[in-house]
Parts: sequence; C-alpha cells; structure tokens
Amino acid sequence: MNFADRLDEAVGRVGNPCLVGIDPHLELLPDEFAVARAPSAPRAERAAALERFCLELVDVLAGRVAVVKPQSAFFEVLGADGALAWEHVVAHARDAGLLVIGDVKRNDIASTAAAYAQAYLAPAPHACDAITINPYLGTDSIEPFIDACAQYDAGLFVLVRTSNPGSHVFQGQGEPTLAERIANEVHVQGERLRGKSGLSSVGAVVGATKRAELASFRARMPETPFLLPGYGAQGASARDIVDAFLEPHDRARGALVNSSRGIAFAWRKHPTLDWKDAASRALDDMIEDLNGALGTRAG
Amino acid sequence: MNFADRLDEAVGRVGNPCLVGIDPHLELLPDEFAVARAPSAPRAERAAALERFCLELVDVLAGRVAVVKPQSAFFEVLGADGALAWEHVVAHARDAGLLVIGDVKRNDIASTAAAYAQAYLAPAPHACDAITINPYLGTDSIEPFIDACAQYDAGLFVLVRTSNPGSHVFQGQGEPTLAERIANEVHVQGERLRGKSGLSSVGAVVGATKRAELASFRARMPETPFLLPGYGAQGASARDIVDAFLEPHDRARGALVNSSRGIAFAWRKHPTLDWKDAASRALDDMIEDLNGALGTRAG
Repeated sequence: MNFADRLDEAVGRVGNPCLVGIDPHLELLPDEFAVARAPSAPRAERAAALERFCLELVDVLAGRVAVVKPQSAFFEVLGADGALAWEHVVAHARDAGLLVIGDVKRNDIASTAAAYAQAYLAPAPHACDAITINPYLGTDSIEPFIDACAQYDAGLFVLVRTSNPGSHVFQGQGEPTLAERIANEVHVQGERLRGKSGLSSVGAVVGATKRAELASFRARMPETPFLLPGYGAQGASARDIVDAFLEPHDRARGALVNSSRGIAFAWRKHPTLDWKDAASRALDDMIEDLNGALGTRAG
Repeated sequence: MNFADRLDEAVGRVGNPCLVGIDPHLELLPDEFAVARAPSAPRAERAAALERFCLELVDVLAGRVAVVKPQSAFFEVLGADGALAWEHVVAHARDAGLLVIGDVKRNDIASTAAAYAQAYLAPAPHACDAITINPYLGTDSIEPFIDACAQYDAGLFVLVRTSNPGSHVFQGQGEPTLAERIANEVHVQGERLRGKSGLSSVGAVVGATKRAELASFRARMPETPFLLPGYGAQGASARDIVDAFLEPHDRARGALVNSSRGIAFAWRKHPTLDWKDAASRALDDMIEDLNGALGTRAG
C-alpha cells in the first residue's frame, strides 16, 4: 500500500498525530546506558548500549503512536557499530507495528541519489518506510527518490522550512521565498505518488516554530503530509500547529508533530521517575495537548 | 596543521590539482568484484569485495594525487557492512599519505549537526580530513561543523553550486542568486579558519560545468578552496575550470578538480586493459590535460 495511505490509516488507528523522534544523544542517555558515552569502552559495546536504549524506547511507544523517527547522526557517531544499531532499531520498530521515518537528510545527484534511496528504502528488515531529504541540489536530485518510492511504496519528507532560528537566512529569501518555491515543487512532484487517501507520499518538513507560515504552506501543498519539528523543546505549542492539519482538524490528518528529547529524555526533568515512566507520561501529556488543540476525540 | 595549509602543501608536492572520487557504484565494478552486486551473496562478502576494489584504487592513486573523495552513498547501500568498508577505505587512504574528503553531504541543526561533525571529523583512524556539507538549513547549521574543524584541524566543502543540470532551479534563483548568497556566507565564515597559506579550511563545491560563473565565485570567495565536480564524465573541460584557480594559475592552487568514474571506471572504455592500468592511464591523461590548461610545470 502507498506510504501516504499506510500513514493515514496508522494515525487514524492510534488517534493522535504524534511522531516521536529517536535521537539517542550520547550525553543525554540515562545512567544505565552510560557505557555508550565512555570513549574508552569498545565501540561495539557503546553501540550495544545505545541500541538497548532505543529498543526500550520503541517498546514504550509501540501501539501508542503511529510513527517513529530515528535520527541517523546519533548512530553515525559510533561508525559502523552505530550503523548496525540503526538497522536493529529500525527493524525492531517495524516489528512492533510502527512506521519508521529515517531522519537522514540525504541528497546528491543522479545515480548517487539513487544509491541513497536504495540504501534506505529498498525492501529489507531494516528498510525505512520513509526518509527525510534535502532539496538544495534541485528537483532532479529529488526524482531518483520519487522513483524509489514508486517502486517500493515508500515515502519522503522534503525539507521545506526547518525549525532552527537561522532557517530564514536562505529559506526565507526572495518573493516567493525559497521555501515557498520548494513547497510548490513538492506539491507538483507529489502528484505522482497520491494515494487513495488523497494524500501524497511526498511529504514536507515544515517547522512548527513558523506558526505564521503554516496555513500558507498548507494552501500551497494541500495533499502533502507535513512533518512538524519544533514542538516542545524548541518552543512551539499545540495551538501553533493546528493550521498544518487538514480540515476538519479534529481528525488529526495530514500532519505529524514531532517531539524527540521531550519524550525520550523527559526523565531529566523528573529525575525521581524511571526514564521509561517519564517518557510514557510525557507522551500522554503530548497526546492530550495536541488532541485538545485539535478537538480530536479519543479512539 | 590547519586543513587548508595541509591541502595546499600536498597539492604543491604532487604538482597537480586532481581529486579522485572513490564512487564504488556496484553496477560498474570490474568483474573480479562482481560478488559486490550479487543480491544473494552475504552482505559482508559483498562489502568486502567493494572494499577490496577501493583499497586497490587507493594504491593506484597514492603519491600521484593529493586527495581522494570517497562517496558515502555507495557504501551506505550495503548498510553496516558498507559502513565498515568505508572506515577501512578512509583509514587506508590516510595511511597511504592521501588527504580524504568524505563526500557525505550531511547537515542538520544544532547538536545533530555537531554529532555529524563528530562522526566524520573527530580523531580516529577512519576520520576524514574534510567533508562536504549541505547549507540549506542556514548558517547556524554550518557553525557546529566550523567549531569541529577549529578543534580538529579539519575542513569543509559547502555545497554552493552543484554540477547537475537542475541545480539552477533553486540555486540560481534571486538576485544575487541563492548560490551567490551562500558563497558570501562561505567567505565570511571561512575567515575564522584561515591558514598560513592564506586559504581557509572552509571550502566550496562549485560545479565545473558552470564555467561562466567560476570567475565570479572566485571573486566572492578569494580565500576559499574550490572543489570542482563535473570534469570529464559530466562534460566540463580543463579550459572550463582555469578561472577557479588562484593567480598565477600555473601553481594550480586553490581548487581541486574532481573526476570519479572517469578514473575508477576508465576500464569500461578500454576493456582490453587491466582496470588498474586503465585508471592509471586515465589519471595520467587528466593530470596532463589540467596542467596543460593551467600552464603548470611538472615537479
């Protein structure tokens, strides 16, 4: 089934638009995984600890959210051992019934882009359902990924407007802005991968921190699933992101709201709680917060 | 020693500005490495064959060029096994006295960007001397990489103007164009990493296929090492890239001209030659061609 349709169905099943980022930042891991950040420990042991943290986090999330988003950089710091941990984490998340968006932000040209698409989207136990990609190289750099998505029923989330404070420096330039031009392209290229749900498998990353722009991006990309980073730790509230969703908002369709550290590292704000209990409660709070703002009814 | 100074010294030593890309595209490997593309073979065996090809290619290049540029995508297609091959190839190239530019085109925000910088630039046998990065997220996404370069004497090549036919779609928009604005930023941010050679460790990728723009980019980034893809297979000639070099051109300073398939897969045009002999001759031709255009004297 088309990725967009699988995503739409999965969000409907769990009844919330939460996307939990799996960002195993070595410095922030609970103490029981401290070996992961010990430079003197064998790298394979460090990666095994990082992997264990991620697998346990996946178990906290399974059945409660539709999608998880592992962040490649925090695996790559442990080199080939980290790469193996990545594969195990992705495979475990899929086994647990979660969709996986690999946050890899890759891109290149021609057959090199095709190799990246193959690496992350071709069928394998550790294949991602979708990945994030960077559009800077041009639309011809996006096409090999769309071809791969068509072949493998996979999806993409193209960086349109990122959530960092300096994202305007390049993305906000021009009239229409660069981000708006890219949004137009995402819409056009997405036509080819439109599913029965009406949504396309070519999604867009749009920072939740850019509240004033969300309605305008939604108008430019009416059939595009949005991935919204910036909720929580980066300052965006549930009210800020309502305009990113398809009407009627109470069905929570068409957008995923990401929280990474706010869930995985919630224990740092509640040091008396077990880290998994803290993550679980933080997820409850996030679901309640978002569904409250959207008017979503449970179930 | 600052990366720019090491680069400048190494280019002076070999007497040519050739940068050879190590792009082990599975479909293009010589038959003796065919197991690398056999989907039914164990992945570790496939990666070992890919690695063997790259190590032998490095041996052909050692002492004759200053720098090699392995392309991450072609290792990532073999997952964690490919990641291990990458580490071995990078370490072998460094042991052979070559500088290594890891063509990873990474980027992200804040501590995630810092994790990528750590993954590729922090001291390790398989650390790269420099990596390519994508600027789309904004200048604040580049800063963690510059911090890492300052700490580790490493370098960056920021994508400014890529060599693909569709690069103008976003990079060529506006007045000044997006690529020109990014060039200005590369120049400004590079000040911090200027070496004794006068060159900065913050370099720029500028497609050799954009001949008409090279002099203008050189004027905007007078102290920036250029990495020029697009020579050979993509159609740019030696005459096309002269303006990218610092004056006087015959010292071949300030720019690296990349050829990947034109060297590694030269055997495909000369099927009666051993693949290494074909690569070696193609490299001779490239050196002669470039040094002829630049007026460089051997030695």
